[in-house]
Amino acid sequence: MKQFLAEIDVMPHDALLDPQGKAVLTGLARLDLSDVVDVRVGKHIRMQLKAANATDAESMARKACQELLANPVMESFSLEVRELP
Amino acid sequence: MKQFLAEIDVMPHDALLDPQGKAVLTGLARLDLSDVVDVRVGKHIRMQLKAANATDAESMARKACQELLANPVMESFSLEVRELP
Repeated sequence: MKQFLAEIDVMPHDALLDPQGKAVLTGLARLDLSDVVDVRVGKHIRMQLKAANATDAESMARKACQELLANPVMESFSLEVRELP
Repeated sequence: MKQFLAEIDVMPHDALLDPQGKAVLTGLARLDLSDVVDVRVGKHIRMQLKAANATDAESMARKACQELLANPVMESFSLEVRELP
């Protein structure tokens, strides 16, 4: 079994309002960062896992996203898997 | 002014406990994903901004992280900036 690291982003769908992102945008305008046009806030998950190969590792990470980490009604996810030395 | 997209990860320091990550790990074990060894949960922020060049865009995103998005006592951040077409 090899060790892999999955880097997962779970973001609110583009079509949905993101109140947390809007709050950050307001906060940034107060910091003289009014050139920031849009902010969306989601989750980043760093997952370390054991698997026989990269394909297995990716399908485990995908299953974790689909069944636990992302709510498909409101969120979409993307993931990247790399082998650890 | 060009448009840039900053992809920012804000993660709890490695030395700190991450109760949310531990909760995910427990949940994954119940989904027959017990080969997941460790999980850390942080924030992912996608920020669209206007700037004259990539260096300015990166320093704006860095300022946003340092002054608003990340709490340096508990979190570290990493960021990547790319130009939008």
